[in-house]
Parts: sequence; C-alpha cells; structure tokens
Amino acid sequence: MNFSNRVISMQSSPIRKLVPYATAAKERGLKVYHLNIGQPDIKTPKNFFDAVNNFNSDVLEYAVSQGLPELIDEMTNYYSKYNMDFKKDEILITNGGSESLLFAMMATCDPEDNILVPEPFYTNYNGFSSCINVCIKPITTHPEEGFHLPKKEDIVSKIDKNTKAILLSNPGNPTGCVYTKEEVYMLSDIAIENNLWIIADEVYREFVYDGLDYISFGNIDKIKDRVIIVDSVSKRYSACGARIGSLACKNKDFISQVLKLCQGRLCVSTLDQIGAIQLYKTPQSYFMEVNEEYKKRRDVLYSELMKVEGVICEKPKGAFYILAKLPIENAEDFVIWMLNEFEVDGETVMVCPAEGFYATKGLGKSEIRLAYILNENDLKKAASILKQGIEKYIEIKNNLATNI
Amino acid sequence: MNFSNRVISMQSSPIRKLVPYATAAKERGLKVYHLNIGQPDIKTPKNFFDAVNNFNSDVLEYAVSQGLPELIDEMTNYYSKYNMDFKKDEILITNGGSESLLFAMMATCDPEDNILVPEPFYTNYNGFSSCINVCIKPITTHPEEGFHLPKKEDIVSKIDKNTKAILLSNPGNPTGCVYTKEEVYMLSDIAIENNLWIIADEVYREFVYDGLDYISFGNIDKIKDRVIIVDSVSKRYSACGARIGSLACKNKDFISQVLKLCQGRLCVSTLDQIGAIQLYKTPQSYFMEVNEEYKKRRDVLYSELMKVEGVICEKPKGAFYILAKLPIENAEDFVIWMLNEFEVDGETVMVCPAEGFYATKGLGKSEIRLAYILNENDLKKAASILKQGIEKYIEIKNNLATNI
Repeated sequence: MNFSNRVISMQSSPIRKLVPYATAAKERGLKVYHLNIGQPDIKTPKNFFDAVNNFNSDVLEYAVSQGLPELIDEMTNYYSKYNMDFKKDEILITNGGSESLLFAMMATCDPEDNILVPEPFYTNYNGFSSCINVCIKPITTHPEEGFHLPKKEDIVSKIDKNTKAILLSNPGNPTGCVYTKEEVYMLSDIAIENNLWIIADEVYREFVYDGLDYISFGNIDKIKDRVIIVDSVSKRYSACGARIGSLACKNKDFISQVLKLCQGRLCVSTLDQIGAIQLYKTPQSYFMEVNEEYKKRRDVLYSELMKVEGVICEKPKGAFYILAKLPIENAEDFVIWMLNEFEVDGETVMVCPAEGFYATKGLGKSEIRLAYILNENDLKKAASILKQGIEKYIEIKNNLATNI
Repeated sequence: MNFSNRVISMQSSPIRKLVPYATAAKERGLKVYHLNIGQPDIKTPKNFFDAVNNFNSDVLEYAVSQGLPELIDEMTNYYSKYNMDFKKDEILITNGGSESLLFAMMATCDPEDNILVPEPFYTNYNGFSSCINVCIKPITTHPEEGFHLPKKEDIVSKIDKNTKAILLSNPGNPTGCVYTKEEVYMLSDIAIENNLWIIADEVYREFVYDGLDYISFGNIDKIKDRVIIVDSVSKRYSACGARIGSLACKNKDFISQVLKLCQGRLCVSTLDQIGAIQLYKTPQSYFMEVNEEYKKRRDVLYSELMKVEGVICEKPKGAFYILAKLPIENAEDFVIWMLNEFEVDGETVMVCPAEGFYATKGLGKSEIRLAYILNENDLKKAASILKQGIEKYIEIKNNLATNI
C-alpha cells in the first residue's frame, strides 16, 4: 500500500524516537534520568483536579467548538495581567498548543507557502508544517551568540513571495533564548513591511529568569492585526496531560476562519477545560515559586556543564531548556551510547540530540538539548553523570582516533 | 491580512452555523428541542467518572503518543467481540474520531489527491479534506433507495489516478444506512482492484436495529492490509466531551507512519484516556438497553414524519439519524423559519439542513437531518411540533405562490 509523500517526508520526533534505548536500559535494571523531554515534575495545581472531581453532570457532553466561555473569560483576565487586552471573541481553545500551531499554519499558508522560523526551533514545527505541505525557512542562530537573531537584512533576504508568516517561540524552546525588546520590534517591522503574520508561541511566557524584561508580541500595538498568540497550560501549570491550548488574535477575520477548523474537530476535552478554568485562576505567586525553583535547576545544570572543556553554551534566560554544543561529532551516537554503554552506580542520563531542531541539513549534529525538569537533588546527580559521560565518551573517541 | 485558500474554501459547519438563530429564539423565551446535533442524552457510564476521580498522581503528565497501553488493551478485547483481531501495536488513540479521520487522510493523500465518499456524508469529512487540500469525489446515493450504493461500475467510473481511498461511515451519518454484506464486499473488491485504502468510520457500530446483520470492514480478511477502522467513544458510550478516538489497522507501515503524526501532537488527554479504559470495559448488555431506547425513538420520529404528505425517507437501520426529503424547496430557509417565526405553545424544534452533507452542488436542498437523541417524551413533542411546522410552512409557501 502507498502512503502520501507528506507523511513519508515527516521526520520521527527526535525527542521521542530514542525512547526504545531508554526502555532497554531500564529493562537491564538501570535508572535513567530523563533530561530529554519537557515533562516537568512540578505539581499540577490541585484546584485542577478538584474542579474535575466536582463535575456533576450525568452526561459528558460536547463543549462548544470555540471553547468553554468560562475558560475564555479567565484567559482574558490572565492576558490583562500582561497588558494584553484580548476580548472574549478573540480567543479560541485548542487541543494543546500543538493544535494551535497547526491551525495557525493552516489558516495562513497554502501548500508550497513558507514560514520563517529562527532555528534551532521546537522540533514539532517541522512535523506540523510538513504534514500540511508548508515549508519552513530557517533563520539560523548560533550557540555562540546565545541564539539571538541575526541582522534585519539577513532575515529579510529569506523572504520570498510565498512567505506568509514568521513563527517563533519566545522564550525559546530549545534555546532558552528570550528575545530583547529590539528583536521583538525588529521582527514587528519586518512583518509590517512584508505583510507577514507573526505566530508567537509564548507557552513559556512565565519562565524568564534573572529579572529580565520580557516583551510579548501581544504588547506591540502596531502589529495587533497580524499577531497570533499561541498558549498552553502544559508547561505553565505543569499540566501536560490536559490538552488545553489556545489561540489569541485581535484580527476578527482570523478568529472566524479558524473557528471553521475548530468546528471541524467539534470540541476540546470538556473535563480538561473545566480543570483549566481553575488553572488560569492560579495566583501569580505560584509562578514566582516555580520560577525560583527552575532558576536553581538551571544554575545547577549549567554550572556542571560548564565544567566540561569545550562545551559551548550561553546561560539560558528563559523556558527550561539548555541547548549546548559538545566537543563531539555526533550527538545522537552519544545519546545512544549513554543509554547502551554508560552508567555510574547503576544510573545514566537521557538527553536529546539537537539535530532535529534544525531545518538546515548538517547543523546541530554536535548539540544536545537538556530539559531541567527534575528536582534539584536528582538534577545534581544527573548533571554529574552527564558530565562524566561526556568526558568518558570523548576519551573513548580520542583513543579510537589514536589507535587507527 | 490574507488567509490561505484552503481555509477560505472550507464551509462553516452546517450543523453549527444556524445555532445563533436558536440562541435568539431562546432569548425570546422559546423552548427549543434540538434535533440538529448528535449529542445524545443517554447517561455516560458512571465508571468513566469514577476512574477520573480516582486519578491520584500529583502531576498530570503527558501520556505516550500512541495512547495509554491499558486503553489499547481494552480496545483489543472490544474488537475481539466483533471478530476483529487487532493487536496492541495495531491501534492508535486519537483526539476524537475527528483526528483519526484527519490523520488517515493525511497519511494516504497528498494535496490534489482525492477520496471517494458516498454522499450525503458526515459533513466534517469536507472540512478535514479541504483543510489539507484533499478532494472528495462523491458517490451520490438517494433517499428513495434508502441511501444504498449504486452499481459497481458507477462507483469505479469515479476513480482516477489520484484516487487514494474510499471513505464511508457505516452505519451512516447522516443517512442511517447500514450497508449490506454485498455492498461491503463490492467496495472491498473495488479497493483491491484499484489499489485503494478503505477508511471505515464505524463509530456507530453498535447502533443497528431490527436485528439486522452488521458486517464491519474489519471482518473482511482479503482487505486487511488496506482497511483503516475509525472509532470513537463519543456516541458509543455517550461521552462526546471526552475526546477519545482511535485508528485500527493491521498494516504496520500505516501505524508507523501515523505514529509520526501522533508524536507531532504529543498526546491525547490523559484523564479522558483513563476514563475511556473503563468505558471499553462496559458490558455488552449496556448496548442492548441503549439500542432498545434508540429504536423506540426512531420509531416515534419516523412515524410522525411519515404522516406528512410528500416526505420521502426509508426507515433508517442504524446510527441515530433520519435524513428526510421534505416537500419544500429550501430546507435552510425552513430551519430558520422554524426558529424565527414558528412555535407551538412556546416551543419549537431545530433540525439540520442537509445540503452541507452533499459535495455535489444543488443536492440536498430539500432535505433535513434529524438526530433522535432526546428522551421519548420530549421526542414525541418535538416530532409533533416538527410535523405541524412542516405543514404550516408548506401552507404559507403555497399561499405566497398563489398570491403572486
């Protein structure tokens, strides 16, 4: 039987495709610390579960396609804390941030159109785009520059007549980069001058460290008709298993076009939405605590990594990832080796090779992404094992090279 | 700002687009009986809610992309009751049947490919296909023939080099048609002879009346490498708000291709899956009761409808819909009129115009879809109001015609 070219051309998730090696390691009795996936261990606010448990209808009915009004209400309140004044009819609830991204691309791009994306980028951008025949045009950024954007003319030179949007995550997954005010304004200008949409994936909005100023694309008035804000409860409230994302846009035509897509898939999980209403009521103090915790974790992992000679990486300012360039040739080989052949007292670490986060062939081969989502004690152990692993791997490779 | 042609060309949901008229009627104080949407009033099995309430982890984590193993296990048991031997690695859990359909189309069709679908069909088939640039080629069926299939040569004549699959719902939404064994075998032969996939949407599998024999496409051994079975808990267990669908296919390559799509959207709601495990444990006796209830409702609605002169409709054999041709010209106008201008003692009925269930322009204009999803008492009232409404509407139209 034949398959479509679009599905054949999709890459397997680089985050998930090496999982079988971890499973095998566990079956051999090893403990594996997972720094490869953005699944936080922070507790989901209890009011989520309380609300779900208090659901007392006999029939679990469809929700309205655009999302439960109470949830949308809470989101308008949430946005107002960040000086964004989205109205009720400017927000749509989706099946996770994933569906938001898919719908935003579908509504703005036809097959053969393209979207500019700073690379490295969240690997699923590739998946969503290729399964709907939209091409990603990478704007390459570098670990040596903390993954900040290149000059305006370099970005503009990538635009052609089929370019419809700029898509980016801010704070960045996998880079941890938080764009400066200048960068946000530069991209806004580029969007206006070239009539592009901006799809701003801001699911890590709360995860900004070191007192850094964060500016949302939703704060820039002159682009309000062309900004699409993607959000999700997954990381914000450590509720990844509740598939609740959203699209916010002040362009009413965008909302009515995407509403057709929402109606096409009927609705988003009713119970998850009921829980999410409570999540968006969580006081801001929650974020301060969580933030402090992540900052500590970042510092633990970063300082351990910096002890390895040849590792290149600026201290990330946001999200909960570190993208580091290692003094090795093939990070995927390293990840598999860590799972197959390395251990410290019956424990090892799984990280994520970064090649899949790049669209440009050949880039990212020496890089890994680390998610600092374990508690401080576990993370300390994991960081130490990782450090020893990198050093051992380099030693073995050097010995092999010497012996040839 | 510009939108993609694919999203512009999508039709609004014909099931949901007239909702504002119902809302206005309710605001005027009218009671509206909803026969327009397939939201059953049958109780969701309580064990769904019990399982969700018993969830006792502090963190609501991502589920695995292919679906919770326990849920997949229960589904293999479920299928075995229908003599289908799907193995664990031949089932994927999806965000409702909607996502199953989208993924099945994405995996089998590139842009400009087409799929044969008997029309009238579930209107969202149109939405899913047009947002991924797949064309639906209708095989027209007729109310006078109970919506059964035309002859083999008529179907084969629609096939061209870009035809990749046959998609159909059985039992049929909106037709209530249950395909005969001969029809199922005929389509199987066509699929083999023309190397097509069969996407069998069997979400109404349990809703077959009058002791009729039902045969699933999953029962035909010779097509097992090309059959994709779409299922959902929504109607089966009256759990529409739990977005749990599935794809079952014995073609392992299909599963591994679609797994990439599953990984792209990370996972399906963890809590809904935990509830759904229990749903698939529901004893078969549940279906017998539910079936008996729906059969009664069908009979009530059908017999009332048959009292109106000129209504054309065979008694449906499955699902919970009646598609009826009315002796009027414009069913959408009739539906709006029922909500805007008609009432019996402060009550009226909302039904669904059927034009949106057809791909062929001009077909279905006089037809409506009725979902018999209310309890017998309400349905009796609704059916009586509908009958009076049709008669009054015809009378008014005739008077208008006479007066011109």
